[in-house]
Amino acid sequence: MIKANNSELKSWIEVPENSDFPIQNIPFGVAKSGKQVFVASRIGDTVINLHKLAKLGYFDVDSDVFKSYKLNKFIKLGKSFTRQVRDEISAIFSHENAANKENDGIKSALHTISEVEMLMPVRVGDYTDFYSSEQHAYNVGCMFRDPNNALLPNWKHIPVGYHGRSSSIVVSGTPIHRPKGQQKPNNNEPPVFGPCKLLDFELEMAFVTYNGKALGQSISTKEADDYIFGMCIFNDWSARDIQKWEYVPLGPFLAKNFASSISPWIVTLDALEPFRVSGPVQEPKVFDYLQYEGNKHIDINLEVAIQPENTKEKVVSNSNYKYMYWNMNQQLAHHTVNGCNIKAGDMMASGTISGNDESAYGSMLEISWKGSKSVAMTDGSERKFILDNDTVIMRGFAQKNGVRVGFGEVRTKVLPTV
Amino acid sequence: MIKANNSELKSWIEVPENSDFPIQNIPFGVAKSGKQVFVASRIGDTVINLHKLAKLGYFDVDSDVFKSYKLNKFIKLGKSFTRQVRDEISAIFSHENAANKENDGIKSALHTISEVEMLMPVRVGDYTDFYSSEQHAYNVGCMFRDPNNALLPNWKHIPVGYHGRSSSIVVSGTPIHRPKGQQKPNNNEPPVFGPCKLLDFELEMAFVTYNGKALGQSISTKEADDYIFGMCIFNDWSARDIQKWEYVPLGPFLAKNFASSISPWIVTLDALEPFRVSGPVQEPKVFDYLQYEGNKHIDINLEVAIQPENTKEKVVSNSNYKYMYWNMNQQLAHHTVNGCNIKAGDMMASGTISGNDESAYGSMLEISWKGSKSVAMTDGSERKFILDNDTVIMRGFAQKNGVRVGFGEVRTKVLPTV
Repeated sequence: MIKANNSELKSWIEVPENSDFPIQNIPFGVAKSGKQVFVASRIGDTVINLHKLAKLGYFDVDSDVFKSYKLNKFIKLGKSFTRQVRDEISAIFSHENAANKENDGIKSALHTISEVEMLMPVRVGDYTDFYSSEQHAYNVGCMFRDPNNALLPNWKHIPVGYHGRSSSIVVSGTPIHRPKGQQKPNNNEPPVFGPCKLLDFELEMAFVTYNGKALGQSISTKEADDYIFGMCIFNDWSARDIQKWEYVPLGPFLAKNFASSISPWIVTLDALEPFRVSGPVQEPKVFDYLQYEGNKHIDINLEVAIQPENTKEKVVSNSNYKYMYWNMNQQLAHHTVNGCNIKAGDMMASGTISGNDESAYGSMLEISWKGSKSVAMTDGSERKFILDNDTVIMRGFAQKNGVRVGFGEVRTKVLPTV
Repeated sequence: MIKANNSELKSWIEVPENSDFPIQNIPFGVAKSGKQVFVASRIGDTVINLHKLAKLGYFDVDSDVFKSYKLNKFIKLGKSFTRQVRDEISAIFSHENAANKENDGIKSALHTISEVEMLMPVRVGDYTDFYSSEQHAYNVGCMFRDPNNALLPNWKHIPVGYHGRSSSIVVSGTPIHRPKGQQKPNNNEPPVFGPCKLLDFELEMAFVTYNGKALGQSISTKEADDYIFGMCIFNDWSARDIQKWEYVPLGPFLAKNFASSISPWIVTLDALEPFRVSGPVQEPKVFDYLQYEGNKHIDINLEVAIQPENTKEKVVSNSNYKYMYWNMNQQLAHHTVNGCNIKAGDMMASGTISGNDESAYGSMLEISWKGSKSVAMTDGSERKFILDNDTVIMRGFAQKNGVRVGFGEVRTKVLPTV
């Protein structure tokens, strides 16, 4: 059992109803308060300065690990240390130790969420994007190929993935600019250059890794959990028109690398354990190295909303992370089966997560079915893709037996081309 | 004029005939001598400890910049600082200052190349691989598609590129393991799993970048030189059988990310300026953002040799970096035209560099024409692709007006699958 997950536990910190951050979550992020930057956790709407707690002697480590602009030093210390820190935080803030409420040292480590700015939590070494939702791959195949042959021949054998850009991953709240690029709107005419016209989001989840094995070694599906630190929500911004013209034969490039947006709190894999569910039957049978035991999918409710400027948001998708065909263990086993090495702070995203129902599609490409239908916004305007000054918001949480563990949100405003 | 490039200059350090490292080169790398690791330069066969020189007060900077396992801190200080350091080294070791030969401080900063181990010089943030040699793209198109339609429609409009894996880039001398993976040798049968059978090298050059602009901004072809620190030789190891089965639709993944190998010395773009040449006429005319002025190609002689175990090497390719269709300025302008940001230490490789002549093909895929013919080794054995325990060696140098500026070599032994 993971101690910090005890579903009976209450915190002496107030936790609002439906908060994503009860004492059973204890996520990790990097926060800024005034001029101080520190590794943080969160309970309810209270942000906990772990550097201050470390200086008080609470964690058995050099406190500089938590006086950092990134989680990488902390992640490098490995899974047993993550567990130790989570258990310690759980103990300090549990109702049983309510006396800590009056402890001046601990009090000085607490901030209200509205007082801090959440920064990019991880220096991402390598970022990989998978393509692991069957319904998404099927929808794309139907639109661009043939409904009778929607999935490519390799799709049920390989957790298809490709490398993406680390430098342009930004944290929730960071506005992005509409990309420019080459497009070829008309097959019989030369390409044109200008701002992307078909800007889209992709609803994804990502996981962050611990240090892996040496180059040449592999990580099995059974070992994979030990190499996964935690998860966040990932918006894989996509320029559909740029993608279409550039992606054959080497894959998406400028269509994706202008920005990706993540939620600021990394929720540990441990905190998500209670929400494990089984995955789909995989037929044809997968190679030995992709087989796995136990429940390796996770039931995480996901939603996407679009908020045009000066109006209310409109939810355009309700999906779930459990809809994945390939789970994280399979993705990591595949990624390393050839000997590829992983490092602390690498990020691997799921690919767009779409459910069977139209209301669960994870991109405007699918929701508007390639631009053939519109979605009404709350102000009466319509969207097929994302317009300038729209804000896209993604949220996610798992819930079971009265405990809700969530991710907060990733919120990104799209500004016009520079 | 770049001071350190003065072709008349001689060094008081002995420089063997045909050395890649005269005083006009002054490359940068990271060396290890005993337990000391330091940023280094090289003249002839003498390695210069820049940390020691910095402590002697030679460079106007905190000496810790050079007491580092990676060049990134140095690169972050920008191009004017690189120039200052190169000029300073040029002055210290020029014949005019031969008195320095007797300076004990300077003497203590010198090592013989055979005494040091060269380490991975850069912590690569993001790694991008382009596909910018027309002959290579044409050859691949002929083999896998149609000689009459060998180039894909986007190839002459876009410097096609894709993201690769940073974590598995290793320095010359690091052995690699043959990757395992899924392959589909027979179209009518299911895929199989096992060690790669068609292991190949790709002869490439790579450039390392300075910090770029903010996310959303672009770098023009005119500005590009200011964002390029230097270059090295790059062996983009490729598993052809794994690639064929996995790469549609999102590009190469496990076929490439098991390893790439680089030469240890980063030769500055400044040192390569004297070897600039013009590039090919580009027809159709490229978009404005890809147009450039002046000579932006570089004449660098390249060779590849294969050395089976316990025998002499056999040169299998003589190519040249000037054969590129798209130059670095165009690659960088394209990479950032959508607002993608670059950081100090990013690496961008050229793609396989093949010349028109068969003897200038840059991969075994092309040299053996998809395995249809063999190359004889010095021991009488034959190669269509790379076998276990083969060593692949790539070398490169530029030469003009009696000055030779080179890269040394990247040498990699292939070990059997783990």
